Amino acid sequence: MIQNPLYDVCAVGNAIVDVLAPCDPAFLEAQGLTAGSMQLVDANQSAALYDAMAAGVEASGGSAGNTVAGVGAFGGRAAYIGKVADDQLGVVFTHDIRAARVHFETPPLKNGATSGQATGVCMINVTPDGQRTMCTFLGAANQLSADDVDAALIGSSAIVYLEGYLFDPAPARAAFEAAAAAAHAAGRKVAITLSDAFVVHRWRAELLAFIEASADIVLANETELAALFETDDFDAASARLAAMVEIAAVTRGAAGSVVLSGDERVSVAAFPVDKVVDTTGAGDQYAAGFLLGLARGLSLEDAGKLGSLAASEVIAHWGPRPMTSLEALAKQNGLKLRSRHSDVG
Amino acid sequence: MIQNPLYDVCAVGNAIVDVLAPCDPAFLEAQGLTAGSMQLVDANQSAALYDAMAAGVEASGGSAGNTVAGVGAFGGRAAYIGKVADDQLGVVFTHDIRAARVHFETPPLKNGATSGQATGVCMINVTPDGQRTMCTFLGAANQLSADDVDAALIGSSAIVYLEGYLFDPAPARAAFEAAAAAAHAAGRKVAITLSDAFVVHRWRAELLAFIEASADIVLANETELAALFETDDFDAASARLAAMVEIAAVTRGAAGSVVLSGDERVSVAAFPVDKVVDTTGAGDQYAAGFLLGLARGLSLEDAGKLGSLAASEVIAHWGPRPMTSLEALAKQNGLKLRSRHSDVG
Repeated sequence: MIQNPLYDVCAVGNAIVDVLAPCDPAFLEAQGLTAGSMQLVDANQSAALYDAMAAGVEASGGSAGNTVAGVGAFGGRAAYIGKVADDQLGVVFTHDIRAARVHFETPPLKNGATSGQATGVCMINVTPDGQRTMCTFLGAANQLSADDVDAALIGSSAIVYLEGYLFDPAPARAAFEAAAAAAHAAGRKVAITLSDAFVVHRWRAELLAFIEASADIVLANETELAALFETDDFDAASARLAAMVEIAAVTRGAAGSVVLSGDERVSVAAFPVDKVVDTTGAGDQYAAGFLLGLARGLSLEDAGKLGSLAASEVIAHWGPRPMTSLEALAKQNGLKLRSRHSDVG
Repeated sequence: MIQNPLYDVCAVGNAIVDVLAPCDPAFLEAQGLTAGSMQLVDANQSAALYDAMAAGVEASGGSAGNTVAGVGAFGGRAAYIGKVADDQLGVVFTHDIRAARVHFETPPLKNGATSGQATGVCMINVTPDGQRTMCTFLGAANQLSADDVDAALIGSSAIVYLEGYLFDPAPARAAFEAAAAAAHAAGRKVAITLSDAFVVHRWRAELLAFIEASADIVLANETELAALFETDDFDAASARLAAMVEIAAVTRGAAGSVVLSGDERVSVAAFPVDKVVDTTGAGDQYAAGFLLGLARGLSLEDAGKLGSLAASEVIAHWGPRPMTSLEALAKQNGLKLRSRHSDVG
């Protein structure tokens, strides 16, 4: 069905630059933040939180952006659709995703800085156990619309990958629907990540409806899965998810992941990590390896292993994207990355 | 002589945001860069190099800025004088240095972005052995002038710390001279770092003249020391430096450092590091510990140990500034940080 796609994965997401800083658990409490969550903030809340945060580092982020950067680090062919502004952080985001060999041509928002729609930022406070708590000011990412969805690009990609986070900004939701329609029209697969348990709480009915109608592949962590079906019964919830789609992958942190397809149920172990520094990007990188594996026709188990490997690299350092070649890392670990013979530049 | 200063260290430097990315040695060769060096680039060269670089992370930098951030991480009182523009990276620099508890009130350059003088950036390519090679576009940092030197602030600081890098931009050189004069007028100490062997090559006579006339404390690494006296004879060169100033500290990478004062010569071991990730900021953090120790009246050896400790923290992660409390780290390692009793906020 999927024939000679130019890209393995094309992602649609909130284009965001991360600001990562260490914090104490007491800081989260003082700021009224729920550990491990993502919440949206407006410009004033964003400025106040930034003032209170420790010194940190900036790194291009955005969940789906991280995923396609990971696909690129595996040597895969990836593309991205998302909105930055024409400002310094927009230049950083654009540089980084292209440097990761990802095709990215969504036009930036003009005069974003002066119109209060600068490039979006996610302030990530990381506790000493490596857990991240995120506050996102969407800015220009809020302006992604269906007009930005390049149907030809999506039609040339084996899998289109959509962030659950896109359910928050209304114009982006339209882009989300348009991307799924373009993919199916071209006979491609539609993958979605639930993104965050709070996103699932906010948009549960809409997400379920979208999954039923349009998703072929779903990625989730166990908290998001529990939120989607409002149950802590992991086996029951994962079985319900598997019944709705072709393939489902549920990550369980250090306990690895479970991949389901029809009656098949594969457990994949997590790769060992010496010290967890910052879990930012763990799920995104799992998605990178897993989706690349599916696009390349690997088995569920082999695809899951690529996901585990990519996640293990990113949690061992600060920042949401690989700092090393995942292609080389896969080779070192004897993992397959079957390459289709195509002449994509 | 030094009585009740409000600050332990006030630094004057090029205010810079670092862009750090991994690279192969072959990349340096292809770009015509000398491994381990710092060179200045113009706007066009900067854009071309950035295009060619891998994806990376941004972090507030600037040699002296890194040092005062380190002083702050030790719980010391620090201040900074340097020039950013009124743009996103200027906001990042300002946030990070203040979040490190450093007093920073130099007014930003207005309309920097539109006048081609955006906040300065240093593109740092890091090879797998952790060595960094730097290309700096000074931008707004180029506009630091003697008018920015707050004589009262410098007069309230036990030590004023000056970057050799400031010898490159002409207006900054005037700021440098003004800062030294203000410090001595208030009976404070003047410290300088040679910064980089290429800076020493460019400004050797001027640096020697400045050290003779105005420096009480000099920091250098062994390559810079060799460049200053045009000899590879370490003992001879360090003796010559020691004869010119009150205190000299020469760092030797993994071999530790040598601190000299009059006839005294103290060798200080490097702190062991599991894996060197990125040497960016190693010298700057050594300076942080060492200068804080001197400002607090510690022995040369104890001051050197604080320097070694701070350097070991920063080379174990990406980025030029501490990602952890150096105060807590010093305590864990049984190192003294004698605190004067003062009520600075």
